This record gives sequence, C-alpha cells and structure tokens, in this order.
Amino acid sequence: MELTENLIQRVNVGDSLTRAAAARPDRPAVVDGTRAWTYAEFNALVNRLAHGLAGSGYTRGDVLGLASGNSAEFLAVYYACAKLGVACVPINLGWRPDEVAYVLGHSGARGLVVEAQLVGAMSEAVAKVSDVADVVVAPGTGGGYTPEPADRRWLELAELYSDNQAEPEFLVEDRDALSYLYTSGTTSFPKGVVGSHLAIYLESMSGALDSGWRADDRFAAMMPMFHTAQLNAFCTPAVMVGATIHVLRGFDPAGLLDLIERERITQVFGLPMMYRAMLDDPSFAGRDMSSLRRCVYAMAPMPDALIRACLDGFGCDFALLFGQTEMSPVTTLFRPEHQLSHIGAVGTPITGVQVAIMSPDGELLPAGEQGEIVYRGPSTMSGYLHNPSATSEAFAHGWFHSGDVGHFGPDGVLWFADRYKDVIKTGGENVASIEVEKAVYAVEPRIAEVVVVGLPHDRWSEAITAVVVARPGEELGEAELIAALKGRLDGYKVPKSIIFTEEFPRTSTGKIQKNVVRERYRDHYR
Amino acid sequence: MELTENLIQRVNVGDSLTRAAAARPDRPAVVDGTRAWTYAEFNALVNRLAHGLAGSGYTRGDVLGLASGNSAEFLAVYYACAKLGVACVPINLGWRPDEVAYVLGHSGARGLVVEAQLVGAMSEAVAKVSDVADVVVAPGTGGGYTPEPADRRWLELAELYSDNQAEPEFLVEDRDALSYLYTSGTTSFPKGVVGSHLAIYLESMSGALDSGWRADDRFAAMMPMFHTAQLNAFCTPAVMVGATIHVLRGFDPAGLLDLIERERITQVFGLPMMYRAMLDDPSFAGRDMSSLRRCVYAMAPMPDALIRACLDGFGCDFALLFGQTEMSPVTTLFRPEHQLSHIGAVGTPITGVQVAIMSPDGELLPAGEQGEIVYRGPSTMSGYLHNPSATSEAFAHGWFHSGDVGHFGPDGVLWFADRYKDVIKTGGENVASIEVEKAVYAVEPRIAEVVVVGLPHDRWSEAITAVVVARPGEELGEAELIAALKGRLDGYKVPKSIIFTEEFPRTSTGKIQKNVVRERYRDHYR
Repeated sequence: MELTENLIQRVNVGDSLTRAAAARPDRPAVVDGTRAWTYAEFNALVNRLAHGLAGSGYTRGDVLGLASGNSAEFLAVYYACAKLGVACVPINLGWRPDEVAYVLGHSGARGLVVEAQLVGAMSEAVAKVSDVADVVVAPGTGGGYTPEPADRRWLELAELYSDNQAEPEFLVEDRDALSYLYTSGTTSFPKGVVGSHLAIYLESMSGALDSGWRADDRFAAMMPMFHTAQLNAFCTPAVMVGATIHVLRGFDPAGLLDLIERERITQVFGLPMMYRAMLDDPSFAGRDMSSLRRCVYAMAPMPDALIRACLDGFGCDFALLFGQTEMSPVTTLFRPEHQLSHIGAVGTPITGVQVAIMSPDGELLPAGEQGEIVYRGPSTMSGYLHNPSATSEAFAHGWFHSGDVGHFGPDGVLWFADRYKDVIKTGGENVASIEVEKAVYAVEPRIAEVVVVGLPHDRWSEAITAVVVARPGEELGEAELIAALKGRLDGYKVPKSIIFTEEFPRTSTGKIQKNVVRERYRDHYR
Repeated sequence: MELTENLIQRVNVGDSLTRAAAARPDRPAVVDGTRAWTYAEFNALVNRLAHGLAGSGYTRGDVLGLASGNSAEFLAVYYACAKLGVACVPINLGWRPDEVAYVLGHSGARGLVVEAQLVGAMSEAVAKVSDVADVVVAPGTGGGYTPEPADRRWLELAELYSDNQAEPEFLVEDRDALSYLYTSGTTSFPKGVVGSHLAIYLESMSGALDSGWRADDRFAAMMPMFHTAQLNAFCTPAVMVGATIHVLRGFDPAGLLDLIERERITQVFGLPMMYRAMLDDPSFAGRDMSSLRRCVYAMAPMPDALIRACLDGFGCDFALLFGQTEMSPVTTLFRPEHQLSHIGAVGTPITGVQVAIMSPDGELLPAGEQGEIVYRGPSTMSGYLHNPSATSEAFAHGWFHSGDVGHFGPDGVLWFADRYKDVIKTGGENVASIEVEKAVYAVEPRIAEVVVVGLPHDRWSEAITAVVVARPGEELGEAELIAALKGRLDGYKVPKSIIFTEEFPRTSTGKIQKNVVRERYRDHYR
C-alpha cells in the first residue's frame, strides 16, 4: 500500500489518539499526579517523541523495550511506537534479570526506555544484551542513577522530544506489530505474543462497545500498564473514545478512595482483594462513591460474599474480564447482570470474538460438554515471536487454543474449570484441580494456601493430591481433612493424600508453579 | 496468510453473523412478514447458500449482482457473499436499464440474483451484458416471470441452497472486497465504490459503539437495503451485536406505526418526511411509541419545527447520520444532545473516522474556517473500481475528499455548507448555493422548488441565479422575489436574476442534476 492510501485507510492504534485529539482537543487525556495533558497536548507530546525516535533512527519494524511503572511517559512511548510502526516491548517489573535479558535479546530490542529509579535493576540485563544500543532514561519517580553498562548510548527521554509536533506520517501496515508482550511462563522462558495494530485496535473498539466506554469516563489506572489487561482492555479503549486516564503508580486503598471522590472517577479496574481492601478501609463508610459507573476485576472470580458486599458498598455495576494475552486480551465479559445469578462463571463473548469448546481431537462440542476453550477473532495474536512451532500448536484445527478447560451453560454463559495442563486424569475421570482446591478452602479455614495436583500412581494413573500450607501456628491433620472433603466432593475427586509444606515455588510475578510442585512430589506414591 | 490463520484472525463481515449465531443462537435475527429466523437459523440459511454458490463455482474474487427489494433473501445473499469472499453488487432499483447494464458489465458480475417481480425490469440490462452467465430468481413478492434473455443459466434461489449448513471455511483477506456500491452520478455513469471487509466491519462496529446498539434492539428496516446507509449503518451493525432486523418493503406510515407497537421496535431509520407522515397519521395520537429508543434520519436535516414535533411525539432520541458511500458510509453523527442546540449541523465524528477541513491547496484549516470536508479512517473505501485516476484524485494530499464544503464550530461540531462543485464563485466571494436556496424558500412560500447555480458572467465571474418552479397555479415576479431576498441575504449573495421554469432535469433516483441546469442556462448572461 502506498503511503497516501496507508494514511487514509490503515488501522493504527496511534491514529486513535490522533483522532481523539482532533475531535476533542480540550478534553483531559492523561493525569499523572500534578501533571495533566489535554488530548491535543498529549497527542503533541507523543508526536514530538515519535519525531525524536525517528530522528534517532527508529523506524518501522524496530523494537523498543519499555521498563516503566505506570506513568504518562509509559503511554507516550507506547503511542509514539504505534505512530512509527516500532514494536514496543513492555518489561514486566517482576521479572528476574535473566528473564529481562532473554526478552530484550529475543525480541531484538535496539533500545530500552527505563525509568531513572529502575536503571539499577535493569543494568544487569542490559549488560547481557549487546544489541540494546540505546538506553533512554525517563524521569520516573526521580533520583540519580549510574549509567551502566557504560558501553551504550545513554540519553534522557527529555532529549528525545523533537520540537516538531506535527502528525508523523509513516507507513505502518494493519498487521505490523504494535507490541511483543511476553507471557510469564511457569515452565520455560516467556513467549513473545505478537500483537498487531489490527488486533489491538479491534480489541480496543470491542472493549469500548461491550463495556460502554464514553468520552466523559474518568478511569483510575492502578494495575500495571505492562500487563495487557491494563494496557489494552482499559488504556487503549479509553483513548479510542477520548476518555480520561488517571495514572496511579499502584494500589493504595485510601489513596484510590480519595481519587475517586476528588476526580469523580467513573471506572476502576483492580483485583478482587483491592475492592475488599477499599471496603475494609476505616474511612470507607463516609465516602461518596456515586461517580462510579463500573468496577471491573480480573485474574480471579469474586466469592459470593465479596461481590454482594461490593455491589452494596460501591453501588455501581461490577464486571469481570476473562481472556489472555494472546487474545489482546479480553474474550468474555462476565456482565453486571450475571454477577449474582452466575457466581463463578466467566461470562459471555465480547463482540468480535467467537468462543467454542473443543475436544482433544479437534471437534467442536455442544453446550454442556466440557473441553478446551478455543477462540477465533481478529484480536487474536499474530503468533509467538520467532516460534513457529508454538504458534502452529496454538492454532491447531483453525482455532486459537487457550489452554483453558471449560463449558458453556444452556444460556450461553461460559464456565472456566481449570488450566488444561492442571486437569487431573484419575481412574478414567477428569478432575479440575481448581474444583478440589475450592473445596479444601471451603472445609478448612485454617489453610493459608492449597495446590491440588495429580501425581503418578500405579492404580489411579494420577492420584489427586492436595499440597497444603497451613496458616501460621495452625496444625492440621490429614485424616481429618480428607474426611471433611468426603462430605463435599464426589468420592473420586477426594484427594488420596495431603502433603503439608511450608511454601510454594513461585514465578517472579508470584504465580505458584504447579509444574514444579508436581515435579517435587512425583515419587510420592512410588 | 494460510487458511488456518486466516480463519482465526481475519476481519470478515460474514464472521459477525457466525459469531452472533454462536453467542445467541436463539435470538431472533430476521423477521420478514410472516417468516422469521433465529440467529442460528439465519446463519444456517446463509451457510447453505454459501455452499450452494460455491458448488456453482463462485469463489473468492467473483462478483454477484443483487437486484432485490428489502427481504430476508437480500441479507442472506449479502452474507453468503461475505463468507465466500465474493463481491456483492446491489442494484439500485431506481436505475435505468442502461445504468444497470453499465454496472453489471463494469463490475464484472458473473451472476445476478433478481427477485421474481423484477425479472422483467432487469432483462433488458442483462441481455446487454454477456458476462452475466447466471440469473438466480429469488421469490420476492411472487408472481410468474419469463426467463429472458434465454441464453443464460436460469435457476431459482431455492435450488441453490445446499444441504450443508456447516460453517463455510474459505480464505478471505481483510481487504478483499465485500461490495461494489455504485454511486449514482449526476454527471456520468456511476462509480463503483470498493468496500472491503475491513472497512465495513469497522464501520459496523463503530456504528454499534457510537449509536449504542444492543442485542435486545429491534430495528425496522424500511429504507432500501441497496443503499449503503440502510445496509452498513444499520443492518451490519445490528448483526454485529445480535439485534433483530424487521424487514419492510417500504414506508407506509400506518403499517410502520403498527409494527412499532406490535413488535416493540426500538430503532427506526427514515427520511425526515417519513417522521412527518407518521406524526400526521390520523391514528398517531392513540399509539404507544414507548418502545422506541432512537429514531435516525439522513439525507436531509430536519427543520426546527419538525424536530421539535418529533421529540414531542415519539418521546425518544433523534439523531442524524452524515457521510457518503465512500466512507461506508457514516462519518459524523448529529447526536441527540445537539438536536435542538445546533439545528442544521451534521454532528461530530464517529469513532474511527478523522474529519478535517482542507483548503484547495491541501492545507488543513482550523475551526471556524470553511473548506472541503476531508476524511481519514479505516472505513474509507479501497478506491473506485477500475478507476485509478478518480481514486487518486479522491485521495489527494493523503485524505479522502468528500466533495462537501463545511466548517467546524468552536465546539467541534461540523456544519455542512454545500457540495464543493455547487459553491458559487462570484465577485471574489464563495457562496453556498444551499444557503441561497434556503433563503428563497423562506421568503416565498409559493415556490415548489428552487435551484441556485452560478452562471458565467463577465463582471461577476459567476452570477448567482435562482431557477424556480412555482407551485401549481401561482404566478411569481422576479423583482418582487429579489427585493424580498435583499432583506434576508448579504448583498453579494442575492441572485442577479430569477429564471422561471416548469421542471428540473433529474437522475433516475430523482436527484436534481444541478450540472444540467447550469449547462442549460450557461448563456443566460451572454
């Protein structure tokens, strides 16, 4: 496509900022602490950065790492990359240096934007990847830093801003990569999910449609922007409709409550425990939460008691997002009208995503039958970067394989059972590890954490086994716990034994590594 | 792109039907008289037709004409084409046979679907185009027909339905053509607007977002489906969200009012005069219009008195759509909140379309300045079929040129002044012909119709001239009318003379050919 046609017709996430600035120049776009930009101002900032990056030689197809907490600069770099056709690689701030080095090297990053306070944490990784030629230091939370490794070009983000704030006009194709989002693997180095402009644009528009985003929304962005959920289920839809993003560095119950009241926040996205913490805040009772239209949660369902307390306390709609990085990321929305009638479900498909249940041999299954959750839709990733075999495995039978197991109810609502690899095959039956975990929590409040795995067993093939960490100071008995579970679970779902331990192996982001647990106890029945 | 990846990731308007059927199989999709289909049933019907067309040799890139009034079959053929990658060419039922023949020949149609009652009207055109090999007769409003020209393959639509209702899985790329929509030219044969799947999908999603479409909407489709406004501003967005389309063959005030009451219709799209006719219907006062959420109008603004009467009488939101076929078609939405405060405006941009004002030398102009309305956005046409020079003219300076003149107000609302070619250059000033026409109507109620053009003049370059048709039996005086206009218009906008005539030259769809009027009187001042 010629540049002229490209500029007219293309799908580019950066253009959604351009258009918001054209249509609503004076609306507030980004508020970060005491700094604030209207759409016209923020678009001008992004344009200046895009011209600066172009002046430093960054061009379509190049890759730029981004190690930053939530900040206006995070969003500015992301949108500047979009307008240039540069792929942005957000760095998960929970990764170990070897993971960061792997991602920088694997993605082919030629530069890294890093906040001043993170320079020390990133230098070990950067030192390992000689292709990272430029280190661009964003102000972040301030403070001095040592420019190491010294064999790179170091510059301040401020130096990169060009004086030219005209709209950059570079050819960027619909399916050029906007981001490589690396998923934290529990078993290996992360895989790079290639997100095209098209995929993320359509996800953003569908997000705006399905979640009812409006130009007068004011959104509190406290979840990490390096996560796809925050970035593409909230920030890019907000920009698409011209809403306001209030940037928060993290979660602090009283601080968030203050912000909601002061700025009349309309949408919030957080973990269930964050809503719990706000409800439990001593100041909650006197707060005015009337500006809230919608609170969204993800990562985990809300227990019955919590969702009821939330609906009561916040007095607005609640919804859960379900999906994964490879789907940019939302696939189903657990809608406000289902929150109380379908507790534990993950919702109905968003516009633009087809959700189906597939048998292991690639047949689509009818409602009521359990199988792997599979997806089709233009917000699907292009593939895994430099990993054609993983990509073709994920795309088997012409559907994207989520690795999740679930089923549809008769009313079209999707229920998630377990991660496919965590389903236990025992005595000819399939048992969702999560179902057993929920039962353990329900019967024994003295448990801090439980992981249920299937361990090799001569008779059962896999024997259901609960690995338990007790609350501090508590003593638990195996026989007692098994007896309690027999009153709650079908016989074949009851653990064959309970293993007590002190702690679980975790990824750098805190996720329990079930595969390591399985490996650790693999000879338990032998 | 491989088929497997294509099926997962592509943008295809047919997939929006597939997804609606998967997510909401039992929701009513299409109601046409006494016939009704759920989404599962309608999708199965479309799939059977797609397989039938494929069995008849239709494949990606082929072209199928569609001469049909509003019917379930119109929509079924359109979606079957989408799923196959066949380009659909809706025939405007107001075209003359030579225009139909031109469109069939120019588009390269290898077949034509035609309703039984239209066979006679289409046979002359088909006879002229030997490439149209197949004539497929849809039931339409019934009645016998003569299969002429006899040298074609004639078949009934019913014969085409395959027994296979499985999802067709053919490779169709994002920017493959879904439709060639020919715009009725006032000066020449129509131009074929190439609408890609991507453009129409994004337009539909933006339509759903900006107009707030919901799955529980029930839409009365009375405007012709061969027009882009009905087809892509209403029918494809309705399918995208899984709403219900009630098909009407045309407009009948009492019939529509009955339907609204009986089916609890939520959205209507019609001309201003149709709302007038409903208000004037003797039965209106006793009607229950409470199901209506939104009434949309297009083609012409509503006068102050009418919009007020509508808001009062229907008690729901009103909105106007503005755009053109080349933009798939909506570019701005004159939103409910502006209906009374901005009478005569055309609204604010929809999501995904950038609207700007351009000077004749390609500079973008600030708010308040008048110039050509230009657009960017992924719902822009791919180009004019087989007409690269018209395409590159339309895409000059990297924007799509609408041919409309207008300006933005300080609040970001767009005001349309005139078609670019109808602006009169007189004595160094630009005058919108429409402004003068409005003034003539305002000062002289005895006028049936007026057209204002600029005619060649030695002193004024173009002399503003009003060509007038009086109401039957009325006698009007030139001096009297000019005197009245002097009290209403700036001096340089007052017509230099008035020409009285009996009737105006028109296109087949009834549009006045201003260019023919100009030509007819070109020597008036010489």
